[in-house]
Amino acid sequence: MGAGKSRQTGTSGRAKVVIVGGGFGGLYAARGLADAPVDLVLIDRQNHHCFQPLLYQVATAALSPADVAWPIRGILSDQKNATVLLDTVTGIDTARRVVETAETSIPYDHLILATGSTHSYFGNDDWAEAAPGLKRIEDATEIRRRILLAFEKAELARDEERRRRLLTFVVVGGGPTGVEIAGAIRDMARHTLAADFRNIDAGAARVLIVEAGPRILPAFNDTLAGYAKKALERMGVEVLTETKVIGCDAGGVDTEGGRIEAGTIIWAAGVVASPAGVWLQAPMQKNGQVRVAEDLSVPGVPDVYAIGDTAFVLQQDEKPVPGIAPAAKQMGSYVAKLLSARVSGRPLPGPFVYRHRGDLATIGRKSAIVQLRRMRLTGVSAWLFWGAVHVFFLIGTRNRVAVAYKWMWDYLTLQRGARLITEPAQPRTRVEPAEEERREEEKATRLGTRSAD
Amino acid sequence: MGAGKSRQTGTSGRAKVVIVGGGFGGLYAARGLADAPVDLVLIDRQNHHCFQPLLYQVATAALSPADVAWPIRGILSDQKNATVLLDTVTGIDTARRVVETAETSIPYDHLILATGSTHSYFGNDDWAEAAPGLKRIEDATEIRRRILLAFEKAELARDEERRRRLLTFVVVGGGPTGVEIAGAIRDMARHTLAADFRNIDAGAARVLIVEAGPRILPAFNDTLAGYAKKALERMGVEVLTETKVIGCDAGGVDTEGGRIEAGTIIWAAGVVASPAGVWLQAPMQKNGQVRVAEDLSVPGVPDVYAIGDTAFVLQQDEKPVPGIAPAAKQMGSYVAKLLSARVSGRPLPGPFVYRHRGDLATIGRKSAIVQLRRMRLTGVSAWLFWGAVHVFFLIGTRNRVAVAYKWMWDYLTLQRGARLITEPAQPRTRVEPAEEERREEEKATRLGTRSAD
Repeated sequence: MGAGKSRQTGTSGRAKVVIVGGGFGGLYAARGLADAPVDLVLIDRQNHHCFQPLLYQVATAALSPADVAWPIRGILSDQKNATVLLDTVTGIDTARRVVETAETSIPYDHLILATGSTHSYFGNDDWAEAAPGLKRIEDATEIRRRILLAFEKAELARDEERRRRLLTFVVVGGGPTGVEIAGAIRDMARHTLAADFRNIDAGAARVLIVEAGPRILPAFNDTLAGYAKKALERMGVEVLTETKVIGCDAGGVDTEGGRIEAGTIIWAAGVVASPAGVWLQAPMQKNGQVRVAEDLSVPGVPDVYAIGDTAFVLQQDEKPVPGIAPAAKQMGSYVAKLLSARVSGRPLPGPFVYRHRGDLATIGRKSAIVQLRRMRLTGVSAWLFWGAVHVFFLIGTRNRVAVAYKWMWDYLTLQRGARLITEPAQPRTRVEPAEEERREEEKATRLGTRSAD
Repeated sequence: MGAGKSRQTGTSGRAKVVIVGGGFGGLYAARGLADAPVDLVLIDRQNHHCFQPLLYQVATAALSPADVAWPIRGILSDQKNATVLLDTVTGIDTARRVVETAETSIPYDHLILATGSTHSYFGNDDWAEAAPGLKRIEDATEIRRRILLAFEKAELARDEERRRRLLTFVVVGGGPTGVEIAGAIRDMARHTLAADFRNIDAGAARVLIVEAGPRILPAFNDTLAGYAKKALERMGVEVLTETKVIGCDAGGVDTEGGRIEAGTIIWAAGVVASPAGVWLQAPMQKNGQVRVAEDLSVPGVPDVYAIGDTAFVLQQDEKPVPGIAPAAKQMGSYVAKLLSARVSGRPLPGPFVYRHRGDLATIGRKSAIVQLRRMRLTGVSAWLFWGAVHVFFLIGTRNRVAVAYKWMWDYLTLQRGARLITEPAQPRTRVEPAEEERREEEKATRLGTRSAD
């Protein structure tokens, strides 16, 4: 054991690169620097990288957390120039070139901010408790708990009004995440849960998408978005467009068009960038994204880069680069290439150019939409394509095989294998025999018996 | 949707059987009554049945919660005479023949109590926070969080003494659970984590088993227990016998032989029965077990049965039936047979006879001990036998294949696929640790700013 290498890198004479965030952007930056003559520290306050595109499948009980999350430490374990720290960044001192964390301060020669985004309640943070969003593993298991518990409470409910409210699920936001989670809840209600209950008709659960804009899935063309809307409606999902949410509470959603009584609300509407821009006091968009230069550096702050959801950068066509996984990966790889060139004195690459590969969204069992440059798919073929792409992009063969296997199994059996309601651990009530007696008894029995396992 | 069937069963003219608890005993009782002319309600406060023999593998990051837990509703979904309620029993009115729950009251003609057991701290319940036990899924993910966080904190720690404390893991209790978890922590430290850290030597983590009795694994014969002790020691686990624990706190364990500074303590020592006996005001053992008659009925309380860890019953040889899964299953099946006969007017079976099949315990990678009636196995053959038996007894083909696949994969790669540190959904009450500990904890897990995933 030695003192932290991260604090010693100055002595190696190699450039110190600090990456904040182990999402797609941060990881691709780290991997891209594997062969560069740098010492690199990746800081994240979670110990795992989360594959967000499949997080909704954890929230709807199809996959387990460990299927879509991997320890960052494990991913970079073989990369000898990389150190991983589980720590929380509290600020950046750009004058001293130091990242301040809860635990320590880490000097940098080059700093990459890949801190991602979180849900935005458009200034109404008090809605958060009633309408959780879906960004982290903990969010997914909490939403899973709420969905499954709603059915359980409905089964126990004695009046019809309460039962109806408990069996109503509102998804706020009609982007891919909103569509995917709404479809998955309907699928689960219709196929998996329908036979499980005795007092309620689980298959009749209402699922609504509430979207403020004129149509759902604005990233897709009219035909595909229209197809998705029809497919959702065939599954029994109600799609409300041009319906602005003006309130969320434990009993339902208030919209400009009236109130919807609902036991479960899921927020899939807006995102806001993490506070990297605040740390830097750099020029920001309203949503908190740092306006970066065409090489993704932060103007006026030497040797600092922002990538992924943290960064605001325009494409050739003057539209912003979207906040999706492929964009974050491309930015991470670009900055790695740029820094490799800088530290080696090689010619620098040209400006960052985003290449949009396409858009995918799954709707439900055997239904999805795919919009690539020259290809449009709907229905089963789109669904299979979607599945293949997501399995391909998962990290690690173990997870690829496990996820593919679970999907196949669930497809064939209509089951969902992770229907667990788990609570935070808390003390349980138990018998309290007199202490003396119990000690005696324990002595006598504990060696011979084993807990109910 | 109709009113609760469970409250209407009186009108069907069929006997109403209520089962409290969805563990091995309760489930086997329910399944055994599938063809009986009864209406049956199974109540559990968890929505899932947990396969406790593999819970330690969740705690040590080898398996996911959903690999060892299944929704009770799903298991009984096809059993048309069964209704499942997610509810908490608060008491039993034996005069009115009603089970009182948090939500309702449920009348019974026959009542089966299969409420299991929980860990016992020998009257020192204040040790619970520092030394969690392993009974529920939530316990397992909490222990997993503590183990993984200990390595993370050690990686950040600046003084050697603190680092040593964080890399010391104490398991209290030398029964099968204690042995299995201690072995798995050493395996994880040596094989999985050794390459992941830069500042610490994860492979050097100390793991101790502290056992009050003269030797570990008292259910096994001397030869096998001695083999297990040697195997543990070869793996680097320190085994302390005749060492009584007199205190547990956030910084370590006090024993009669002195203090052991440790960052993580796991309780695998004693169990105490759930409060079924208190509900009934029936004669109990000092550990809370209800003393049942030879047909598992509760003396003096008509039509009430206690099974599994809740029940105290002697074998032919005057030793108590052990608190293990096979015993709970046998009692569940027995009571189901008895009640089927009773409601059909068929001759009743004779007294309950427990058949002990044997004892198994895994020690670590390629090492286990097996003691059957005519067979003793150690080493690799015992390990393979142990694995085959556990896969066989898992519920559902999906889980059998998934678990077998994960084991094979982890065996070949030395990885563990579920190394996630996740937060409880809500703040938990805890014993206030020393100031330094508390600051450390906050740093590692703060929720203030946006997570960088």
